[in-house]
Amino acid sequence: MFEEQCELMRYPMAELRTVEWTHGRVRMIDQTELPKKLVHVIYRNHKQVAKAIKEMVVRGAPAIGVAAAMGLALAANSSRSGTKEGLLSELEAAAKALEESRPTAWNLFWATNRILQVARRAQGEPKEIASRVTEEALRMAEEDVEANHRIGEYGATLLDDGDRVLTHCNTGTLATVNYGTALAPIRTAIKHGKKLQVIATETRPRLQGARLTTYELLSDKIPVTLIVDGAVGYLMKKGLANKVIVGADRVTTSYVANKIGTYVIALAAKANKVPFYVAAPSSTFDLRPGQHDFEIEERNCREVTHIDSRRIVPKGVSVFNPAFDLTPIELVDGFVTERGVVSAGSIAAGTLYPSRN
Amino acid sequence: MFEEQCELMRYPMAELRTVEWTHGRVRMIDQTELPKKLVHVIYRNHKQVAKAIKEMVVRGAPAIGVAAAMGLALAANSSRSGTKEGLLSELEAAAKALEESRPTAWNLFWATNRILQVARRAQGEPKEIASRVTEEALRMAEEDVEANHRIGEYGATLLDDGDRVLTHCNTGTLATVNYGTALAPIRTAIKHGKKLQVIATETRPRLQGARLTTYELLSDKIPVTLIVDGAVGYLMKKGLANKVIVGADRVTTSYVANKIGTYVIALAAKANKVPFYVAAPSSTFDLRPGQHDFEIEERNCREVTHIDSRRIVPKGVSVFNPAFDLTPIELVDGFVTERGVVSAGSIAAGTLYPSRN
Repeated sequence: MFEEQCELMRYPMAELRTVEWTHGRVRMIDQTELPKKLVHVIYRNHKQVAKAIKEMVVRGAPAIGVAAAMGLALAANSSRSGTKEGLLSELEAAAKALEESRPTAWNLFWATNRILQVARRAQGEPKEIASRVTEEALRMAEEDVEANHRIGEYGATLLDDGDRVLTHCNTGTLATVNYGTALAPIRTAIKHGKKLQVIATETRPRLQGARLTTYELLSDKIPVTLIVDGAVGYLMKKGLANKVIVGADRVTTSYVANKIGTYVIALAAKANKVPFYVAAPSSTFDLRPGQHDFEIEERNCREVTHIDSRRIVPKGVSVFNPAFDLTPIELVDGFVTERGVVSAGSIAAGTLYPSRN
Repeated sequence: MFEEQCELMRYPMAELRTVEWTHGRVRMIDQTELPKKLVHVIYRNHKQVAKAIKEMVVRGAPAIGVAAAMGLALAANSSRSGTKEGLLSELEAAAKALEESRPTAWNLFWATNRILQVARRAQGEPKEIASRVTEEALRMAEEDVEANHRIGEYGATLLDDGDRVLTHCNTGTLATVNYGTALAPIRTAIKHGKKLQVIATETRPRLQGARLTTYELLSDKIPVTLIVDGAVGYLMKKGLANKVIVGADRVTTSYVANKIGTYVIALAAKANKVPFYVAAPSSTFDLRPGQHDFEIEERNCREVTHIDSRRIVPKGVSVFNPAFDLTPIELVDGFVTERGVVSAGSIAAGTLYPSRN
């Protein structure tokens, strides 16, 4: 694992990839260093990738799904097993380690399952299976970018010239391989000539909104105003935010699990008749019946008690730091996926296909 | 203005006064230094006091009301005017400067009006009028402490053994002269032998919850758990917070103006059937008909872009930083004042007296 440090400058986000496969290694932007430095880090094995996911070097459900798939490709390529069974059991152990890194994001499980399925179905020597796994991981990265552009097209139909769109956390290029989920409709609508203002919440404790969303939007010259998380209700009440688009880490037939703070944004949107949309690829949706009892990750207290290395809280205070919350899907006015805009009713019924009106 | 620095230790809050009159000067705890250092600062004139209010050396609506009253006492005592008219016009100018320091808190206007009224009605030489003004300011400090203890008694009836009470910002000793508004019922209930857990929001951008509320409660050995502002909805949904008490900066017949973030807490409480109470002395209430068009203070961007001197946001981002929001009074299950628990219906009707059921 070594660092490739780039000059601090604003890149057009279209040219960056958050996660990529290069010379048999995985290369990722170190998001913990942004916006101070744009640093790429190279990973050689799946354990390093799992640690990078856990420490949020890479974050965003679609990005960590692809990172996990590439982590499995690293595991497959470095396997010394002489048999398919041996390789499969190594891959299963690697998948488990990767899944434990961020247990709430469904994309992670979706990605490891897809890779394991390819490996199980593949014929031939371990080396050939490793090639199939690697191809699949690279295909998943390409599919992610393509899905995001489709999300952008479908989502852009929901945005009007002059909208002031509130978003939470980071759901852009940095949360995906490129282009983003909830930021994709904003990017596409602007390409189509609509004038939009973006309101970004700072997103405590990790400040993804303050650090990453502002960085991306400034880089792409999209107007952005930063607010503290507590201000979301006031902006909607005052008419200063007239639409909301957020991403998701997991969608079930009842709930959207997304960055802590999403639920009160949805409540404020409902109370103020502001449309509330969720943008996510189909890999975020786990619509099997009864899939509601998943883990909400709780993260280290230090995320709340410290900013960088500076303590902001008296010693001895106990902290509760859930990383996600649950928004009832009834509060969602539309789910934007790569297949179209899907109603909460369709999601509740377990289908990701747009209902015909 | 000079500093009296105390050792960093945890004081029982009962022994501290946030604002006090000492040897003809005003002495205040510098809350910008907490929880790192407990520092007292001495002020000699009203301009210094106005600056201290603006810079949040002293904050909390009741505390700044008393600080403003004492600021006027400093102005009265240092006046060289030979006539009552001359003194009054100096006091009116001083009142205006003090009112502009934090325009949302009603207590500030209430305090300056009360002092000006005393000065206008007083007979005698300017020196005698200055004595009356000083006495009134000191009376207001004592009344504040007494009101808070009454708020504590009335509010404690709303709290049950085992409650997990969520609060926002700081509404304790540090927001008043002593004892607090929304923290008063918690303190009194605990004195009465009830076991309570307090959940404190960190309260971005100024972190009054993370810095001040935790400090106070730790000092008084009251169990406290800190969360980020975005987590309020999740805690209520999970049953981890079953009551809410917050303070107020101004209450009209329609709205509670309180620290930014209060409104979404009220919405989350309503959605999850969690009782939501507002605790404030009568000096916070402006129940004259039609008093809704007051200023919501917007503060410096730097509060959001920096933590202490450290920049956490890319340069060039625009920031919107309203210090307060507006909660419709229908979302309030009870107003706790020094006169009793008052319903939202009574407040809407313009009366602060508890309705008889």
